[in-house]
Amino acid sequence: MPQRFVPPTEMLPVEEALARILDLCEGLPPERQALEEAHGQILAEDVQAPFDIPPLDNTAMDGYAVRAADTAGASEAEVARLSVVGELAAGYLFEGIVGAGEAVRIMTGAPIPEGADSIVPFEESDEEGLRAPGQTHEAIRSVGVMKEAKPGANIRRRGEDVRAGETILQKGTLLRGAQIAVLASMGTSAVTVIRRPRVAVLSTGDELLQPGQPPAPGKIYDSNAPGLAALVEEYGGIALRLGIAKDTVDALTAKIQEALSADLVVTSAGVSRGDFDVVKEVLAREGTIDFWTVRMKPGKPLAFGTFAAPDGRRVPHIGLPGNPVSSLLAFELFGRPVIHKMLGRTPKARPLLQAVADEAIVNTDGRRVYARATVRMGEDSRWHARLTGPQGSGVLTSMARANGLAICPEDRSQIDPGEDTTVIMLDWDQPLD
Amino acid sequence: MPQRFVPPTEMLPVEEALARILDLCEGLPPERQALEEAHGQILAEDVQAPFDIPPLDNTAMDGYAVRAADTAGASEAEVARLSVVGELAAGYLFEGIVGAGEAVRIMTGAPIPEGADSIVPFEESDEEGLRAPGQTHEAIRSVGVMKEAKPGANIRRRGEDVRAGETILQKGTLLRGAQIAVLASMGTSAVTVIRRPRVAVLSTGDELLQPGQPPAPGKIYDSNAPGLAALVEEYGGIALRLGIAKDTVDALTAKIQEALSADLVVTSAGVSRGDFDVVKEVLAREGTIDFWTVRMKPGKPLAFGTFAAPDGRRVPHIGLPGNPVSSLLAFELFGRPVIHKMLGRTPKARPLLQAVADEAIVNTDGRRVYARATVRMGEDSRWHARLTGPQGSGVLTSMARANGLAICPEDRSQIDPGEDTTVIMLDWDQPLD
Repeated sequence: MPQRFVPPTEMLPVEEALARILDLCEGLPPERQALEEAHGQILAEDVQAPFDIPPLDNTAMDGYAVRAADTAGASEAEVARLSVVGELAAGYLFEGIVGAGEAVRIMTGAPIPEGADSIVPFEESDEEGLRAPGQTHEAIRSVGVMKEAKPGANIRRRGEDVRAGETILQKGTLLRGAQIAVLASMGTSAVTVIRRPRVAVLSTGDELLQPGQPPAPGKIYDSNAPGLAALVEEYGGIALRLGIAKDTVDALTAKIQEALSADLVVTSAGVSRGDFDVVKEVLAREGTIDFWTVRMKPGKPLAFGTFAAPDGRRVPHIGLPGNPVSSLLAFELFGRPVIHKMLGRTPKARPLLQAVADEAIVNTDGRRVYARATVRMGEDSRWHARLTGPQGSGVLTSMARANGLAICPEDRSQIDPGEDTTVIMLDWDQPLD
Repeated sequence: MPQRFVPPTEMLPVEEALARILDLCEGLPPERQALEEAHGQILAEDVQAPFDIPPLDNTAMDGYAVRAADTAGASEAEVARLSVVGELAAGYLFEGIVGAGEAVRIMTGAPIPEGADSIVPFEESDEEGLRAPGQTHEAIRSVGVMKEAKPGANIRRRGEDVRAGETILQKGTLLRGAQIAVLASMGTSAVTVIRRPRVAVLSTGDELLQPGQPPAPGKIYDSNAPGLAALVEEYGGIALRLGIAKDTVDALTAKIQEALSADLVVTSAGVSRGDFDVVKEVLAREGTIDFWTVRMKPGKPLAFGTFAAPDGRRVPHIGLPGNPVSSLLAFELFGRPVIHKMLGRTPKARPLLQAVADEAIVNTDGRRVYARATVRMGEDSRWHARLTGPQGSGVLTSMARANGLAICPEDRSQIDPGEDTTVIMLDWDQPLD
């Protein structure tokens, strides 16, 4: 027999709701991952350099490896003439020793030949003038150095950048292009990173159709599961698309059981005051759950709890409102930090900026208003926020047209036109000059 | 016989180099894509709503569907008592007509029953008081309305948000969570989007080892291809990892041929003045190519051209410097906009901000300096930029530790400590409160 749900009386501040949710979510265990698959994951351990970088003394310039002493007093007028005894590209070792009066033609990155202690750049030699047009450097038998070389000049020393054993990337580092490049430069082909969270996404409601099904009177297409699954992947998780559960105990229970292999369960609908009791009943029976009203608009109702998985894990569950705008917004505010925490990232906010409100942002009931806005740089060199149209929580297009969320705080009845508003930037590129 | 390369004499401004590159790159053709795979792609056509949203008049609240006239004069003291003739959840149609003196218990989203013209929210009825504890609403046979209802109250009208035929998302829209939700709400399961660019990534050089190979004297591990491939995917492309080409005509020619199935070819090394001639020779023979020196630091040498693919396409080619920091930086500045343009996005810059330089940013030779910096919000509520260590172009860890690139313009010899610097933000989240 369905139990009547007793609505909570207090409204929870957004920060408090987020703190309670994060408190029950943990970073996931590490896994070994191929380096080329690890983009966007977090290092689960410090990484030390296995060898010096550069591994050998090498040349920072193209030029000639010489003994500096041989160039004493050299000038354009009186070049120091040296025998060219070899040529060395990066990747090869010089098989021999540079003796007095000798030079090796050498390319950037090549190891310094034994005997040499300085690199003379091409520009400080007379190589250019030695050649007939079309003649290649193979014909060069000797070279004139036009400037005295200093010992050590243009040499990158072994270990100059990184010493063997030094920690080059710390546990907790997000792996993007540059970090992957650093790991590759150490010869690394696999890394230990925090596992990506698998996030089960489930919509509930007898009125819902899957996209692709034929329309039917009284039914609407589910937009929550596709939208939320896309956000899961944008935030760095792996979406488990469980589709739609009908509003029956059996159907919903079966879907929840299926969801328990995941690291996080996200449902939508069934959490607000007047919803049919079956959703609340099942959620409460399969785990612990609190039903909150959060001081935010849109998106007031929110449920949060944990399910007990058969393998003993506690699987956190975010119960989002059924309304599509509320659902996407609440997942942005609460789901994104949870996925980041599970990924091993420090949960952080989107970039915030101050923008001039080009229109009023109205607050009718003391909740924090997140107005869907288009933010653009104005001709006055200030950011301007314009609302994307009617702000009803049913107006999903208002969310799709927004690149930011302009805030009217809970203690203000209105942000006036021309006044500054804080904007959470959802998508922030700037026009190229 | 290798030809000697004649170095260019002018230095190209960064903007000019980018403009020349973008000029020869085009948006790719459209493809049909499953909606759940289309995240991050760009709509290739306007999308019209196939039906009204909402599709039917429906209730915005949980409550009772009534005839407003029946509630005339109702108050808490003198309720208007109505017979409850049915119950309606979202997704179902009421099989009947609400007559005079009748009400239908109705849940948010459910279509308005014929005959009813107003929704009385639960809070304005005496439903709560009618029930004994534990008793369910099925026992409710009549309800008292405590406030006069207005015709049309709490009803969302058919087509209120979107009219059938209306353009809901325009060609060129980037699909993220909210846009995918909007498309799903229209019953869409596949969309026409611009194809993602396939980007061939190739390193060149006899000195290079693949990560995972054993170290060898004089050799270094290739960091460019893994780092660049990660950036390709971060920017929205699909990386074709071609590995390393040896510095021979045959090896390089074979790799270039393999790369021509791609939409963009990215090579590294072989483009600066002193490089062995073979790379330049092959690049020039397989297509048209210009070798530039760009007024930037790190990353001065850059090649750009097109290859002729066997199927007649012109495949753009970006030839990056071999130096790992230069290579990653140049690909950030030039490759990211190219991938965006091919994806059908308007090429845009990363977010820029003004930060206080905590250290000097020194410019020795009139190029634009991109200093690798860590940007943090200071206690003075201003952004502060601190360099990530030595700024030599060999110091890859300086790139891996940076979240931004702090600029010293080409016409300044130094940004002084305490002075403002413009920073290109590579990764910009903010700490949660």
